[in-house]
Amino acid sequence: MPAEVLQQAASEMLDWQGCGMSVMEMSHRGQEFGRILEAAEADLRELLAVPANFRILFMQGGGLAENAIVPMNLSRGQAVDFVVTGSWSQKSLKEARRYAQTQVAASNEADGHTRLPAPATWRLNAGASYVHLCTNETINGIEVHDLPDLKALGSNAPLVIDFSSHVASRPVDWSRVGLAFGGAQKNLGPAGLTLVVVREDLLGHALPICPSAFDYKTVADNRSMYNTPPTYAIYMAGLTFQWLKQQTEGDRIGVAAMEARNVAKAALLYDYIDGSQFYENKVARDCRSRMNVPFFLRDESRNEAFLSGAKAAGLLQLKGHKSVGGMRASLYNAMPLEGVQALVGYMRQFEKTQA
Amino acid sequence: MPAEVLQQAASEMLDWQGCGMSVMEMSHRGQEFGRILEAAEADLRELLAVPANFRILFMQGGGLAENAIVPMNLSRGQAVDFVVTGSWSQKSLKEARRYAQTQVAASNEADGHTRLPAPATWRLNAGASYVHLCTNETINGIEVHDLPDLKALGSNAPLVIDFSSHVASRPVDWSRVGLAFGGAQKNLGPAGLTLVVVREDLLGHALPICPSAFDYKTVADNRSMYNTPPTYAIYMAGLTFQWLKQQTEGDRIGVAAMEARNVAKAALLYDYIDGSQFYENKVARDCRSRMNVPFFLRDESRNEAFLSGAKAAGLLQLKGHKSVGGMRASLYNAMPLEGVQALVGYMRQFEKTQA
Repeated sequence: MPAEVLQQAASEMLDWQGCGMSVMEMSHRGQEFGRILEAAEADLRELLAVPANFRILFMQGGGLAENAIVPMNLSRGQAVDFVVTGSWSQKSLKEARRYAQTQVAASNEADGHTRLPAPATWRLNAGASYVHLCTNETINGIEVHDLPDLKALGSNAPLVIDFSSHVASRPVDWSRVGLAFGGAQKNLGPAGLTLVVVREDLLGHALPICPSAFDYKTVADNRSMYNTPPTYAIYMAGLTFQWLKQQTEGDRIGVAAMEARNVAKAALLYDYIDGSQFYENKVARDCRSRMNVPFFLRDESRNEAFLSGAKAAGLLQLKGHKSVGGMRASLYNAMPLEGVQALVGYMRQFEKTQA
Repeated sequence: MPAEVLQQAASEMLDWQGCGMSVMEMSHRGQEFGRILEAAEADLRELLAVPANFRILFMQGGGLAENAIVPMNLSRGQAVDFVVTGSWSQKSLKEARRYAQTQVAASNEADGHTRLPAPATWRLNAGASYVHLCTNETINGIEVHDLPDLKALGSNAPLVIDFSSHVASRPVDWSRVGLAFGGAQKNLGPAGLTLVVVREDLLGHALPICPSAFDYKTVADNRSMYNTPPTYAIYMAGLTFQWLKQQTEGDRIGVAAMEARNVAKAALLYDYIDGSQFYENKVARDCRSRMNVPFFLRDESRNEAFLSGAKAAGLLQLKGHKSVGGMRASLYNAMPLEGVQALVGYMRQFEKTQA
């Protein structure tokens, strides 16, 4: 989280803008929280350039709960197409099988989740209710840099994107999206808040078994207040949105500024790895994630020494996911360029000491 | 929320106990958050005297989501008995009908939700998978002061209590309970955290349509970390638990101290209302809520004057729920006795000015 956001939250903890109450004490139906919610929604709509025919929903349960909630709301008892690009889309597929007939339109499993299947090769089903695509796979380090145009591929189904792990790190081409969902905890705020952005025509088709609290139409009709919303998490996300709106990079502002920074941060790390004989990244260049960079020491017997040296240098959480091994650097919005410079500096020095 | 809790949260916002991170920035799998979660669970277990054969789950979605999640986990395709005591149990019943055959074992609807049907009169079904009871109805002001002994009533079904609105205001007799659930936002912490306390033998029977993130066994097996938990809300609840443990009232401590205070607060208000010819409470004396006190001006044409005078005196949120009308005072744990004294003082003065 940006330090400015945390500082503001600390200073307002006992008294929000002179109202005499903490945000945590506000009734979610009171006018004070109403202002917070309204501002958060409007700021997010501006930041992500969400069109007027999309609704913004603040929900609970995270991406994992959405893996069930999306098919409950959108499948209509019809088939769902899945594009498997890594661990998260596999999890989504497994969960969706409880609620709909699922079909794997494409998968990169045979490549060890290192390449993105070209959209032209996707076997899309004419009768699919939607197509699921995880646009950033944190564990495998794969990111979709150009959303597919499903219409051009012969499908009339809406595209559902799981953008949990790169939301607000880059703009979204909403003309190609029917629904986007994501937990807030990577780039937007604290855990416990789930963001859903859904085109209005997709509302109102929930299966009868969908819990009322997770029926998108019910949530939309009640402006995210059907059940008590996670008020403080929405407040913190709102502060983060205000912070994001103020970010500039050259003449870019907001999410475009974040994108420019994220491009520079990722390029610094990938360029160093690609130029090294000591480290390696196995992901195809056209789909490398700007957020999550898995890399390997070519001599894996040095892994422990690398990690303990990193820890001593104050570089934490570099161990790769157990399903992939090796290392992983996460470069979310809140990571400054200086953090990546420090990492590359350490990697260079470690390589030297091992020569 | 207690001011001490908010002050501690503000002071630790940027750096939790010298770890250099905000709680909001911690990985939920890191050792720092692990300590927070473990302490919160242990403190809650101590506070509520939760027996070892019950699991404590920290979930998301609030009481409204649990209205679906409970039958998804516990109904096993069998019937469910409902005791309808007011608006919340009616909502729970309506939602459960999506997942199970429901039967109304007792209802106080004919009495306008002002009396608690005597347990001896409940028509309990021998084959019911569980019996649902809302132990505090916020809108109607009804509280169950003695949990029923279902075995003595001829039922082998576990009792499920919705204790959202009075959790931690009094002890719980776990020998009579199979599962208790509640949103945290009344007495435990911020919105966005849901507490479930469930007897171990009830785990593992979820319907196939239950989302993984809401399958109690999955949540329990993963110690509330199957999906990313609402970390900051758990931290705030944990601070509240520590505060509750320190509360004393005479020789009572913790929840027993809160109960003594809540009894005194409620008695002050009910005694004044009962002794007045100007105000009225319609709930039977044996089931009046200590948390929520609905009352009426006998001359309802004075309602607006009462509310505007109250607001001028700094007494807020006194308007009754629209389904009931009149007034409602909420006396949750965080309301001090002085707050109730101020309310009664205002009521007495208002009565005089209207004479």
